[in-house]
Amino acid sequence: MDISSLVGLLGGISVMVIAIAIAPGASFKAFIDYPSIMVVLGGATAAALISFPLKQFLNTFRVAKHIFFNRQQDFIELIEQLVSLAETARRDGLLALEGRLEEVDNPFVILGIQMAVDGTRPEIIEDIMRTEMDAVATRHRNGKSVVDQVGRFAPAFGMIGTLIGLIIMLGNMDDPSAIGPGMAVALITTLYGAILANLVCLPFAEKLGFINKHELLTMEIIIRGIMGIQSGDNPRVIEQKLNTFVPPKLRAGAREAA
Amino acid sequence: MDISSLVGLLGGISVMVIAIAIAPGASFKAFIDYPSIMVVLGGATAAALISFPLKQFLNTFRVAKHIFFNRQQDFIELIEQLVSLAETARRDGLLALEGRLEEVDNPFVILGIQMAVDGTRPEIIEDIMRTEMDAVATRHRNGKSVVDQVGRFAPAFGMIGTLIGLIIMLGNMDDPSAIGPGMAVALITTLYGAILANLVCLPFAEKLGFINKHELLTMEIIIRGIMGIQSGDNPRVIEQKLNTFVPPKLRAGAREAA
Amino acid sequence: MDISSLVGLLGGISVMVIAIAIAPGASFKAFIDYPSIMVVLGGATAAALISFPLKQFLNTFRVAKHIFFNRQQDFIELIEQLVSLAETARRDGLLALEGRLEEVDNPFVILGIQMAVDGTRPEIIEDIMRTEMDAVATRHRNGKSVVDQVGRFAPAFGMIGTLIGLIIMLGNMDDPSAIGPGMAVALITTLYGAILANLVCLPFAEKLGFINKHELLTMEIIIRGIMGIQSGDNPRVIEQKLNTFVPPKLRAGAREAA
Amino acid sequence: MDISSLVGLLGGISVMVIAIAIAPGASFKAFIDYPSIMVVLGGATAAALISFPLKQFLNTFRVAKHIFFNRQQDFIELIEQLVSLAETARRDGLLALEGRLEEVDNPFVILGIQMAVDGTRPEIIEDIMRTEMDAVATRHRNGKSVVDQVGRFAPAFGMIGTLIGLIIMLGNMDDPSAIGPGMAVALITTLYGAILANLVCLPFAEKLGFINKHELLTMEIIIRGIMGIQSGDNPRVIEQKLNTFVPPKLRAGAREAA
Amino acid sequence: MDISSLVGLLGGISVMVIAIAIAPGASFKAFIDYPSIMVVLGGATAAALISFPLKQFLNTFRVAKHIFFNRQQDFIELIEQLVSLAETARRDGLLALEGRLEEVDNPFVILGIQMAVDGTRPEIIEDIMRTEMDAVATRHRNGKSVVDQVGRFAPAFGMIGTLIGLIIMLGNMDDPSAIGPGMAVALITTLYGAILANLVCLPFAEKLGFINKHELLTMEIIIRGIMGIQSGDNPRVIEQKLNTFVPPKLRAGAREAA
Repeated sequence: MDISSLVGLLGGISVMVIAIAIAPGASFKAFIDYPSIMVVLGGATAAALISFPLKQFLNTFRVAKHIFFNRQQDFIELIEQLVSLAETARRDGLLALEGRLEEVDNPFVILGIQMAVDGTRPEIIEDIMRTEMDAVATRHRNGKSVVDQVGRFAPAFGMIGTLIGLIIMLGNMDDPSAIGPGMAVALITTLYGAILANLVCLPFAEKLGFINKHELLTMEIIIRGIMGIQSGDNPRVIEQKLNTFVPPKLRAGAREAA
Repeated sequence: MDISSLVGLLGGISVMVIAIAIAPGASFKAFIDYPSIMVVLGGATAAALISFPLKQFLNTFRVAKHIFFNRQQDFIELIEQLVSLAETARRDGLLALEGRLEEVDNPFVILGIQMAVDGTRPEIIEDIMRTEMDAVATRHRNGKSVVDQVGRFAPAFGMIGTLIGLIIMLGNMDDPSAIGPGMAVALITTLYGAILANLVCLPFAEKLGFINKHELLTMEIIIRGIMGIQSGDNPRVIEQKLNTFVPPKLRAGAREAA
Repeated sequence: MDISSLVGLLGGISVMVIAIAIAPGASFKAFIDYPSIMVVLGGATAAALISFPLKQFLNTFRVAKHIFFNRQQDFIELIEQLVSLAETARRDGLLALEGRLEEVDNPFVILGIQMAVDGTRPEIIEDIMRTEMDAVATRHRNGKSVVDQVGRFAPAFGMIGTLIGLIIMLGNMDDPSAIGPGMAVALITTLYGAILANLVCLPFAEKLGFINKHELLTMEIIIRGIMGIQSGDNPRVIEQKLNTFVPPKLRAGAREAA
Repeated sequence: MDISSLVGLLGGISVMVIAIAIAPGASFKAFIDYPSIMVVLGGATAAALISFPLKQFLNTFRVAKHIFFNRQQDFIELIEQLVSLAETARRDGLLALEGRLEEVDNPFVILGIQMAVDGTRPEIIEDIMRTEMDAVATRHRNGKSVVDQVGRFAPAFGMIGTLIGLIIMLGNMDDPSAIGPGMAVALITTLYGAILANLVCLPFAEKLGFINKHELLTMEIIIRGIMGIQSGDNPRVIEQKLNTFVPPKLRAGAREAA
Repeated sequence: MDISSLVGLLGGISVMVIAIAIAPGASFKAFIDYPSIMVVLGGATAAALISFPLKQFLNTFRVAKHIFFNRQQDFIELIEQLVSLAETARRDGLLALEGRLEEVDNPFVILGIQMAVDGTRPEIIEDIMRTEMDAVATRHRNGKSVVDQVGRFAPAFGMIGTLIGLIIMLGNMDDPSAIGPGMAVALITTLYGAILANLVCLPFAEKLGFINKHELLTMEIIIRGIMGIQSGDNPRVIEQKLNTFVPPKLRAGAREAA
């Protein structure tokens, strides 16, 4: 998953770099204009900063790293672990789960098991876990909406920068030979805005939406598993229930269940 | 929260001012054109004035100040206060709350406590509080929709101003050397429209939506708290219920509840 | 309410007239082009005429006059009147309401009272009143959607007119000095389309949506009131119920109810 | 209803023809370009052909003729006929309806009566009639969506045609005097796309949506009527029920019912 | 169904090829520019690659072939087969179905029958079949959304390519005679983006939506049929139930059922 985002980003940049490199009479220098970068990046960031509380804006960077460094939970493995925990709980009692906590990586599973071991009432366990899940969903959705918003403002500030450039250029049109280069510089801002929106922000937002959906499904599976473990359900029944979240071909122990 | 909006607005303006300042041959004077300001600001305001009843239009200014001067309610503190009031009510009776009203800042909490002290029937308390909440939601939503609308009309009147400028310029094209400056002036209106929409109205509307959501959640917590106090619930139960609105890490007294 | 729409419309027009008046070298004559008016207004009207049944199209004019001449029902006054009618009905019987019908202005209240006096069964009264309410909602929504549609077609026909002008101009470009004025005339159609959409149709449609919402709320209050009167409810209870539609501060007799 | 669509279409075309006719230096010949027609009409049709199964694409022409030749069912007349049939059924039995089938025009009424006469079970009658109604709704919605789609693709292919024209023109710019006419021809494709979308497809799609809604309401009335007739309801009760679909002023026998 | 997509695609391409072929002074060579193809196709693909997990991106090609090679299930035939299987099951028992499995083509019918023969509990059969159906729906929807996304990014990268071309051209405007051809090359990228979006991606996405809806309906019919067979329903009742998915005219054995 991570690789595709990285490959896509590098691929998209390469495509444009190559197109410039092979064009006769083109120089990369002509495509670097610091004030234009400032207007597009600064303007779109400013607009996003106005739109969102500071905490949410900053949180975006934490969320955005998931686009590239996202270790996606394997559902099969997760279900197998929950079933194995259920077997232990059924055989040796809920308290025996404490000894197995160190094998568990997922902090959400740990949270659930810990509460079950502590004898927390099931309604409170579910309530706390669902609230945590809602908080994650909100945090991710907010992160996505900041990226989305920057993606929507970027082309607008690209146009604003180009308008500023055009007004300056048209205002002192004494030297006709300067019109071409002036126009070129003005258009760079539009180019930056289009690239920032279409190669960075909009695809990133789309990917964050995906990651979010996957993580919420993971948490849903965990909640169902923990609730089953806590109430002492038969591990086979728990497995069968959790498997409905996975396509038949991939189901853990699909054969036995059927 | 407030600071991010102010920082964003000043940052966005700075970015454009710097871009103009460092551009060779540019003068700030070239970017000030009063008739253009009049067409964009006047036109978009006029369109919003046609779209909404006067009362709602004027109310927008009152709502808009929240973008910068918004003292956001701290949920933890609010829940602690409601729990403390519940303890007093349970220990010394509902009437004892009257003596504690002066410590309370939030007028919505005061409204609820006052009604409980007056012996108003619970259905009526909830009905009045929910109606008040709806009224706040409507007032905020209306305020947001005026800002939204101005943001949508601004680019259109930017274009209208540019068209007016172009028609005037093209109509007397006797002096070719005047074309450039004429065109520059015509484009200023488009620039104003784009800035008004993308640096002011659309981010402001987005922020108002956020503030609204937060305020409604605050009111929901208060209503639940007041209803619990009125019916003499155990303060611990009230705390546990209200805490579900807050992410686990931040919960007031989370440890004891679990 | 009415005044804001009129002020907005006149303000919007003034802004453009002043911008033209103070521009050096501009003449109003340059902004009047009858064929352009014909293409934009005729084209957008034609498209709306194709889109809607004739009856609905014509009905729009009747609905549109509400934008300026809209006598908005005062909720407080309405509730007071319904409560007063309820008191009469409770004191002197439903038939006594007949004598008070002449004080009532609102035809929808009259319809309801008349049916109650006639002894019509309550289900039928409610059914007839709700059907009437639905018919009003549909008529208003249809009126709004015609205005909306003209607002959406106007810029398109503005562009169509400009394209026609450009094609004619480019087709006989023998005299280079005629290009400027030809272009100016071509752009006028785009200007007309933008003004028709953004200063007239879209704000009008928005306002009609508002008026509609307010009128439906009025009818909802009346239906609830009439049903309460018909079933002989306590006038205080009726007042309390109807007051939930009004923000607490404005409630009729809010003090006594609380 | 039909007339307004025809008047609108002819009016829209006239407006453009007159605008060209009265423009100085314009000739109709300059507005006819067969390759442009081919690109816009052919391209938009091709895109729609890719988007939809062939059967649905062809069905559009059958549906589209309703825009002009739509005999809209009169609700009052329909309700009167259903009530009259109900009276016959109640007086002389369901079988007596067979003799009255020849007075009935609407094939959907005939279908329902025929099944009732045949003694088909009521659930099956309703099931078959609702399935037929769904099929009509789907057929109409599909027809509308093809027209919608062509309307959305037309401007795109207008732009594609203009781009092709511009690229050809710019590629051989040896003769500067040819630029104007070449540009004019290139722009014709954009003009065609805008007209096809805004004067034909989008208004037609809107109208089809309207016709669809009206026809479904007609079928709903018929189903309710047939079910009432089949179960031997009192004709007065049937009339009263069906009348709720019609605004009070227009209700058949409204006076008696009230 | 397949033919219409192929005809549409070839027709759309032909229309543009012919338009170029008959234009005076045009050469096909002027419309081929490899760097432009690279920017549009590469850029849009890169953006889609960032947006989606690699597995989903690659899966698109598998889904896309359905646009042209889609053997659509005939509902009538399917229902007849299910009814025939139900007759066998009722006459000779569920186990007898095993002998008829080889006549069945549809793997989803085979899956269901196999589970019924194996004596799997009905809830589990339905659960597994519905999960499989959801998985197919998700896979198709994901495939559609990749195509949709490429269609949305293609025009953006067309514009990006044109901006790159314009900036290069304007940067070295020493030779005025090179402006025309340089502009022509720059516009080709926009043309490619528009064609990729409007003749390929958007119509393909629309068609995939259709195919998906049809396949899900097929699976729904199969699930209902298998559940009926498993519970030993009367084959006539099964037929009648399944027929409600088909318009009356086309119903299998419609005559007998009525």
